[in-house]
Amino acid sequence: MALTEEIAKKAKEASIKLSALTEEKKNSALKAIANALEKKIDQIIEANNKDLELSQKGGLASPLLKRLNYNRSKIETTIEGIKSLINLPDPVGQTLMSSELDDELTLYKVTCPIGLIGVIFESRPDALVQISTLCLKSGNAVMLKGGSEAANTNKILTQIIEEASLNCDIPEGWIQLLETRADVNEMLKMDKYIDLIIPRGSNEFVQYIMQNSNIPVLGHADGICHVYVDKDADINMAINITIDSKTQYVAVCNAAETLLVHCDIAPNFLPKLKVALEKHSVLIKGCQKTQKIINVEPATEKDWETEYLDYILSIKVVSNIDEAIDHINRYGSGHTDTIVTKSKNAAKKFMDLVDSADVFWNASTRFSDGFRYGLGAEVGISTNKIHARGPVGLEGLIIYKWKLIGNGHVVDDYATGKRKFKHKKIDEKFPLS
Amino acid sequence: MALTEEIAKKAKEASIKLSALTEEKKNSALKAIANALEKKIDQIIEANNKDLELSQKGGLASPLLKRLNYNRSKIETTIEGIKSLINLPDPVGQTLMSSELDDELTLYKVTCPIGLIGVIFESRPDALVQISTLCLKSGNAVMLKGGSEAANTNKILTQIIEEASLNCDIPEGWIQLLETRADVNEMLKMDKYIDLIIPRGSNEFVQYIMQNSNIPVLGHADGICHVYVDKDADINMAINITIDSKTQYVAVCNAAETLLVHCDIAPNFLPKLKVALEKHSVLIKGCQKTQKIINVEPATEKDWETEYLDYILSIKVVSNIDEAIDHINRYGSGHTDTIVTKSKNAAKKFMDLVDSADVFWNASTRFSDGFRYGLGAEVGISTNKIHARGPVGLEGLIIYKWKLIGNGHVVDDYATGKRKFKHKKIDEKFPLS
Repeated sequence: MALTEEIAKKAKEASIKLSALTEEKKNSALKAIANALEKKIDQIIEANNKDLELSQKGGLASPLLKRLNYNRSKIETTIEGIKSLINLPDPVGQTLMSSELDDELTLYKVTCPIGLIGVIFESRPDALVQISTLCLKSGNAVMLKGGSEAANTNKILTQIIEEASLNCDIPEGWIQLLETRADVNEMLKMDKYIDLIIPRGSNEFVQYIMQNSNIPVLGHADGICHVYVDKDADINMAINITIDSKTQYVAVCNAAETLLVHCDIAPNFLPKLKVALEKHSVLIKGCQKTQKIINVEPATEKDWETEYLDYILSIKVVSNIDEAIDHINRYGSGHTDTIVTKSKNAAKKFMDLVDSADVFWNASTRFSDGFRYGLGAEVGISTNKIHARGPVGLEGLIIYKWKLIGNGHVVDDYATGKRKFKHKKIDEKFPLS
Repeated sequence: MALTEEIAKKAKEASIKLSALTEEKKNSALKAIANALEKKIDQIIEANNKDLELSQKGGLASPLLKRLNYNRSKIETTIEGIKSLINLPDPVGQTLMSSELDDELTLYKVTCPIGLIGVIFESRPDALVQISTLCLKSGNAVMLKGGSEAANTNKILTQIIEEASLNCDIPEGWIQLLETRADVNEMLKMDKYIDLIIPRGSNEFVQYIMQNSNIPVLGHADGICHVYVDKDADINMAINITIDSKTQYVAVCNAAETLLVHCDIAPNFLPKLKVALEKHSVLIKGCQKTQKIINVEPATEKDWETEYLDYILSIKVVSNIDEAIDHINRYGSGHTDTIVTKSKNAAKKFMDLVDSADVFWNASTRFSDGFRYGLGAEVGISTNKIHARGPVGLEGLIIYKWKLIGNGHVVDDYATGKRKFKHKKIDEKFPLS
């Protein structure tokens, strides 16, 4: 058995025990982890400084250095996150449905952890703490692989979390850190042990993982988000929403990349928008119809499918709302799209037909985020069409089991007509917990 | 663009329109389909007879011929199924959660169809009708590929369903039938258009599909289900449950393949069980400890991982409940496993730690089935660890969208502290429907 497989097997075994832990035990371990991180904050910063130095020497790009940097205030934010996680209700052991199939034969649908979660992330070390504590709260074991540039930081973080949790009787092996790039490729093949992979990183990175594993992946590759300004939009509102969606934070997945504008409003709207965008130093690219109204660079087919993550906006003038919806469903990434309009009917149509995780009416695309949605803790943002979609909270790490309690019941009695099903929905918690 | 891709693109486009259809429209189409099937029952039987003749000449194995046979009573059962489907509530447009993020900024989590479902099935033509009507009810488009031995039956069924639904204004292209084996391989690559694949067929068939597509698959490959007889089980109950789990219908995924017996009860239980099993002509294979108690064939490692789908049972004597749980988690397929015991603690432990979709106490494994669970309509049985698990009803074809209604809200106001989130859970339906 290869090393990675052995690690995965151990983590899977731990996940079984973890699934039956009480809320109290999990919360006391989370408290211990938060305390240990607080106590060892200087050691974490020291390890992170080592990583930062090596990466600077190695010529790591400055946005990546910024993500790698895990300073006191970022660590404190992470610790606050763990504390609010403790206050969330236990997602495990909730009875979702119960039904009396027959006398003394009762069915319960009860939430439980998924099992073993594989997490692969690039530079940001806070992702390690966030995801592993989310896994612990939800009773899942976790295999982590961070970027090699963060090796020292990730190592000490994992050690602290492991030590603190094992002291609280969390099953050994529940958290595992992989070290090499080769480990990732091994990990992607472990569909026998790993139940779900959560990748956090760049577009290319996530796409590589999605294409190279049979394990389900929860996440998003890119975020090509759209603002559509309908013919009867309030012009000031449309400008505000476009500026916020584009510029409030350009390097994130829920920033807008393309603006669609109804042809009726374009002549009045676009010149005003141009002034506002230029105040924010946004480079504008436009389709031919746009170029007839404002003087901007040409946008090509390639622009509609590009996630700039930068101060660049492509603009297309459309003949009607249907063309806008078609464009979004064709070029978008099913992430977040918003319509600015006074028309309730147009809003309904847009929100019904745009096939995205998050569809907004008169609000900035930047709102699609677990914290802004009030989900408490965030696993990530998913553009999947199954399981969990959009900003995903703890429920993304949860599934359910069907638990049936009988008293010697056999199917033959029902097949031969000796007994009949009642199928009476009841409102009863699973009694063995 | 290849033919299959063109078909997939068309179906995807139809799925967008389908997602916004009213409950009335979908139900009237389902009624029309049921009526059309009733009216054309003779033509269906004729087409099916053609398939049966060709397959008999071609030497198709008799269990497959039995599945291929779509006689009057089977067709009538399918039609009854459509009628009960009509009575189920519309799974689309349900508000799962709503939250006032701030004044005039309200978030809704609303159910919607998944999109385009790919269905690949072997001989049984009833699967075609069942799944396509389930898709229609839940607002999904569907691409179907049936076994070539059922070509004539599948063709006429698709024609009837398509014609009846288009007459009721269901968007053209929502149902598509693929014809060749090569189409299947094309289909598995269409992750741009197809959102979920549901395979119905043999173990090898489903495994092939799971291993050859990046599209999420909902289903189960095998069903190695266990009965565990604990030390203080009621002996008669244990015999009844074992007999029912093994013999009530051997060719199905929820039939038991392996029996685990606590060593304390084995000397008393196994001889009585042997008599009962032999009455049902079950071939018994046993581990060495079993063989010391009853005279049976030896069971090898390979038996623990074999789905017999036949009158064969492998038996292992275990030292304690932990060994039974470990065995099930190692060799089982995460489908259905049952414990027979008088002990509440043992039952709790088993139901907590056995990592299967369906875990039972004192009931036959044969109960794990959508109709017996009272789910109404069944999409299939899933051993996935995400999205939907165990018997899956209509909810397996449903996901949700986040719908946010604002009044010009931008994130910058919250980032700069000008405004604060309320995050007040409310109990309000999405207003635009």
